[in-house]
Amino acid sequence: MSAFDDLLAFQRQTEALSSVAERLGWDQETVMPRGATEQRAEEMAAMEAVLHERRTDPRLGEWLEQAEPQDAEDQRILELISRDFRRASRVPARLATEIARQTSLAQGVWADARANDAPDDFLPVLSDILMLKREEASALADGGDLYDALLDDYEPGASQAQIAALFDSMRPRLVTLREDVLGAEFQPSALSGHFAQETQLRLARSCATAFGYDWARGRMDIAVHPFSSGRWQDSRITTRVVETDPFNCIYSTIHEVGHSSYEQGIDDDYAFTPLGRGVSMGAHESQSRIYENQIGRGAAFTGWLYQRMSDAFDGLSIPDAEGFYATVNRVTPGYIRTEADEVQYNLHIMLRFDLERDLISGRLDTVDLVEAWNARFLRDFGIAVDRPANGVLQDVHWAVGLFGYFPTYALGNVYAGCLNKAMAEAVPDLDRYLAQGDATPAVEWLRENMQRHGGLYPPRDLIEDATGSDVSEAPLLDYLEEKFSGIYRL
Amino acid sequence: MSAFDDLLAFQRQTEALSSVAERLGWDQETVMPRGATEQRAEEMAAMEAVLHERRTDPRLGEWLEQAEPQDAEDQRILELISRDFRRASRVPARLATEIARQTSLAQGVWADARANDAPDDFLPVLSDILMLKREEASALADGGDLYDALLDDYEPGASQAQIAALFDSMRPRLVTLREDVLGAEFQPSALSGHFAQETQLRLARSCATAFGYDWARGRMDIAVHPFSSGRWQDSRITTRVVETDPFNCIYSTIHEVGHSSYEQGIDDDYAFTPLGRGVSMGAHESQSRIYENQIGRGAAFTGWLYQRMSDAFDGLSIPDAEGFYATVNRVTPGYIRTEADEVQYNLHIMLRFDLERDLISGRLDTVDLVEAWNARFLRDFGIAVDRPANGVLQDVHWAVGLFGYFPTYALGNVYAGCLNKAMAEAVPDLDRYLAQGDATPAVEWLRENMQRHGGLYPPRDLIEDATGSDVSEAPLLDYLEEKFSGIYRL
Repeated sequence: MSAFDDLLAFQRQTEALSSVAERLGWDQETVMPRGATEQRAEEMAAMEAVLHERRTDPRLGEWLEQAEPQDAEDQRILELISRDFRRASRVPARLATEIARQTSLAQGVWADARANDAPDDFLPVLSDILMLKREEASALADGGDLYDALLDDYEPGASQAQIAALFDSMRPRLVTLREDVLGAEFQPSALSGHFAQETQLRLARSCATAFGYDWARGRMDIAVHPFSSGRWQDSRITTRVVETDPFNCIYSTIHEVGHSSYEQGIDDDYAFTPLGRGVSMGAHESQSRIYENQIGRGAAFTGWLYQRMSDAFDGLSIPDAEGFYATVNRVTPGYIRTEADEVQYNLHIMLRFDLERDLISGRLDTVDLVEAWNARFLRDFGIAVDRPANGVLQDVHWAVGLFGYFPTYALGNVYAGCLNKAMAEAVPDLDRYLAQGDATPAVEWLRENMQRHGGLYPPRDLIEDATGSDVSEAPLLDYLEEKFSGIYRL
Repeated sequence: MSAFDDLLAFQRQTEALSSVAERLGWDQETVMPRGATEQRAEEMAAMEAVLHERRTDPRLGEWLEQAEPQDAEDQRILELISRDFRRASRVPARLATEIARQTSLAQGVWADARANDAPDDFLPVLSDILMLKREEASALADGGDLYDALLDDYEPGASQAQIAALFDSMRPRLVTLREDVLGAEFQPSALSGHFAQETQLRLARSCATAFGYDWARGRMDIAVHPFSSGRWQDSRITTRVVETDPFNCIYSTIHEVGHSSYEQGIDDDYAFTPLGRGVSMGAHESQSRIYENQIGRGAAFTGWLYQRMSDAFDGLSIPDAEGFYATVNRVTPGYIRTEADEVQYNLHIMLRFDLERDLISGRLDTVDLVEAWNARFLRDFGIAVDRPANGVLQDVHWAVGLFGYFPTYALGNVYAGCLNKAMAEAVPDLDRYLAQGDATPAVEWLRENMQRHGGLYPPRDLIEDATGSDVSEAPLLDYLEEKFSGIYRL
């Protein structure tokens, strides 16, 4: 066995263990008995202790020094392991374990606080998590910027300066578009009615199938906060059901199918190597968003969906497919990020990005967070937050320590804009398939040009290779302006 | 920190990891996508590699030498860790990992072979598993008896000689009782009808609740082969549904509640120590069997169940509670162990015990197993096996490497007989509660006298302390003869 082989065998086991830890997270959010929180926190901490020990194993350093890559794939594998080794080695085992334990516990505290609209039950816990994450960030940053150090875990190579500049250039066009749309004479109707859970789930399943989701290597469950989980042969999705709003379930499902499909699309040969996962959260989100929005909320696919939903629910309050397309894409004031329309979604991210940078830097204390959130929300969205569950308590991310994660959602939208432009040129007859409820030509193009590569290329390179152009926010903004000008007859 | 504290902290993490591995097993048998078999095998192997490394960690030897127990609990903890350390150290890591991987894969192969009635698809895999288990047994036995070495994992202190003697003394009375019962003039009616899955599951849930199952620390799912899984705050049960036979679902559920209830009943202070689990498979089975049979199939509880089932299914084909009690306890020829009545159940175990001893010793080869099974079944039960799914393919145990496990089912029945005799004396008005669908006075007696102790006492000591008598098969056989003489009017 060469040093490279030894390293890969060791890494393979680490990847398998990390996949187990992820499965445990899925279990906690879908099926775990509610009384098992302490036990699960111990289990997560034990898994993290094992994983951290392996990620900092001194043999890794030796193997990395001795290993001789045979090709570009080997080279990239070494890069990724080396990066992970460097990062993990900076974080003390005690801290890594403690973060796993506390975030597992905090998840339940957050869910209860959200259900009871009681931020005071949650903020002290958030304060502890924040302290741990700041300590982790200090260790990782090694004198550099704390937020950048955290961001780097989700979007390698990105920086807050770069993202702040991106957001600065996106905001004016988004705000103008929102004004035009909200002030337009034509306003799409809302969908009204009662939509039974079982029928919604059946529809959601057929949408997942329309996007080529491989049910033999996945499954769908209900979760408070939809997410996807897992890789290779076991990539699961979750969804939620609101009986007055079937779009919530359907588009949560298509979104999560985007994530899962990415994992399912990665070259099998990369399984349980560092190449065997989506390369970044931004790259991941590009898939979930292009599935959900550019494809799933496009005129062709919603034409098919209109028929399916009319059949399933025995008629709809919207009289035709054209009106239905406008309804699906309706822009309205709203509190909730995950339910936001395409025009406003990124404005939600900008709010979180600024607040979490302030939390990490220490400029903002958790005791002032509710006030800061509400003030900022009023400024950015023109409406006052009515209750904490619609404000600072709406997202699980901070509870589970995901600081630096939110901006990858907006990056994903930008990447999706780039991919969509290239895909439209490469697959000119796509709408013909989508109109029949078949999104697989789009999935195939994305699979061929992006998904199959897994972690082989850095995120920006990956998108630029797939599209043949530099990453830019322009395609996304052009697409939004064109789409919503059409719908709103601007 | 003393050596004892260090040891306990290390062990606590090992217990948490072992609980994770068990949860992964639950996932595989209930919710895992069918295409994830290879991935799951890798994950199980990786977990086993970690667990084996910890169980054989040289520091354990040092701590065990230096640790100073303060009381009997500490002493027992040291005994149990030391026992596990000695056993684990005899098994090479490669072998332990390979068994985890192959048994995870074999489970799917077995399930397919059983579904397709195709033993030839499964026997080569069984042959590989058997080879690995024989290798493990040799390592564990250290020159002693191979089967005893395996048995010791499930029932510490038991030996095949002792069990063979027990079975020899049980068989004649069981065979005579069966003859009398099958030849009796009075024969209870079968229950006929169609019983909808949802209604069965609702009934099964209310039965679990009647036995005090703590739903906040458990849940119920469907599995091909019902089992219970987990400990402390997360002990889950599974059941199955046959729409022509509601007793299958109801009594599988009560049986698994017995197992889960044992885990739920262990002193919280023992959580994630070696005392925090049921002490042996025999002790475990004593709980599942006494819940299922002595309590669940008794006249008092079935009186309540009769009303509940009549209401749930809008009438039953049995006209009264007395007839229903006889129907529940009906003795008929049948192939399937898990569906066997109390009279014949242990005869099924004896068949498996003899065959698996022959497999482990090498007297029987897997290529001859179907023939050997069928011949033995004809001799012991007087009927010819009609298809492999009703014969050698009916149980998952050998596929997942559980050789030496089956006899603990019969031991559990014997223990349950002892416990039932003592409980009847200690809780004389139990039937009054059971008649109202409340089994908690029985559960409380078992909890107080047995369950709460977890691993604190060796299995026989535990039963003898709880009952104040030596373990003997007599109470079980007396109970069976009295019960079935009554039902069959002998």
